[in-house]
Amino acid sequence: MRIAELSRRSGVAVATIKYYLREGVLPPGERTSPNQASYDDTHVHRLRLVRALVDVGGLPIAAVRDVLETVDAPDPAVGKTLGTVQLAVFRSPPPTDDPARAAAEEAVATLIDTLGWNCPPDHPAAQALVGVLVTAGSLGHERLVEVLPRYAAACAAVAESDLDYLDGAASLDERLESVVVGIVLGDSALAALRRLAQVNEALKRYPEP
Amino acid sequence: MRIAELSRRSGVAVATIKYYLREGVLPPGERTSPNQASYDDTHVHRLRLVRALVDVGGLPIAAVRDVLETVDAPDPAVGKTLGTVQLAVFRSPPPTDDPARAAAEEAVATLIDTLGWNCPPDHPAAQALVGVLVTAGSLGHERLVEVLPRYAAACAAVAESDLDYLDGAASLDERLESVVVGIVLGDSALAALRRLAQVNEALKRYPEP
Repeated sequence: MRIAELSRRSGVAVATIKYYLREGVLPPGERTSPNQASYDDTHVHRLRLVRALVDVGGLPIAAVRDVLETVDAPDPAVGKTLGTVQLAVFRSPPPTDDPARAAAEEAVATLIDTLGWNCPPDHPAAQALVGVLVTAGSLGHERLVEVLPRYAAACAAVAESDLDYLDGAASLDERLESVVVGIVLGDSALAALRRLAQVNEALKRYPEP
Repeated sequence: MRIAELSRRSGVAVATIKYYLREGVLPPGERTSPNQASYDDTHVHRLRLVRALVDVGGLPIAAVRDVLETVDAPDPAVGKTLGTVQLAVFRSPPPTDDPARAAAEEAVATLIDTLGWNCPPDHPAAQALVGVLVTAGSLGHERLVEVLPRYAAACAAVAESDLDYLDGAASLDERLESVVVGIVLGDSALAALRRLAQVNEALKRYPEP
């Protein structure tokens, strides 16, 4: 199909498609003349994936490129692919030199240790958690650290479900894409469900008159 | 203190402080001369709160203003304040006219019904969840809907912890700020813990050689 048809079928404007081609997040079509190329269903699917990462995941285009490079040239080890995608989609808060950082690092290391989780304390997510505690402390909300064990228990159940989702993929290709879809769409789904659960819990505790 | 001292103590550049004053997210200082104003500790604290919302929460300045207006002129009903902050900090995916939307709406309504949650099906978070399912379906990941009950169970536990956190606030002021801190920093903490739990679960299932 020509680019106009690709635009119609994917719902993405022609100018945006051209931008994605220049940025390398959409593979070029098959050239049929010096000024024309032909696209197929894989392009439609890829455009939908890019839009999911941009619109739902809020990823900048460079992160989208990193994620798609991993999907296109996968490491056979699922754990490694998961790690690469995690890094690409993870927005770390800016690092700080706060003197409170050492105490927060200690708190996070203790938490991981208590949970018995097998993950390096210098993992970007652990560092992000340290950043959250530093920020909370700077606002006088040191007690935020107390909710972490309950959050962690909930996240362990979520992660089990996440890995079951990967294991349920029919093919390697689908499995790799499941990592991306699961992480990005899963974050949005979780945030939405947390809001709904908060509404439910608030109404339970403080019934409206 | 003068603006230079406020900048030093908060770690926020003078130009940025002036921008926040213009945008109305930082209350003006007490004017001491036509070109000078004096600031106090409440300004330092407010600047830290603004930075938390911007840096950790990723909120645009207009959303920060909405959130702070609620904190400054609170509704005595905690549930209402929670709702306003939820709306302000919640990034909804763009609405779609996808024909698959009706099926996704049905799936979300059924989920909420099965859970017995007391929350309106037209709540923005429910609509966001519908959007996630539509996007997943457009990528051939219809089966994402199957993870939602397990996610929801985890979120119910998280929401209980969230409301306990609010109930633990010492004063009304602290309680209102807890809503903001809890939602924004809590989202980041959850995302980080989910990543760490995924690493742990992946290493458990696929041990590295």
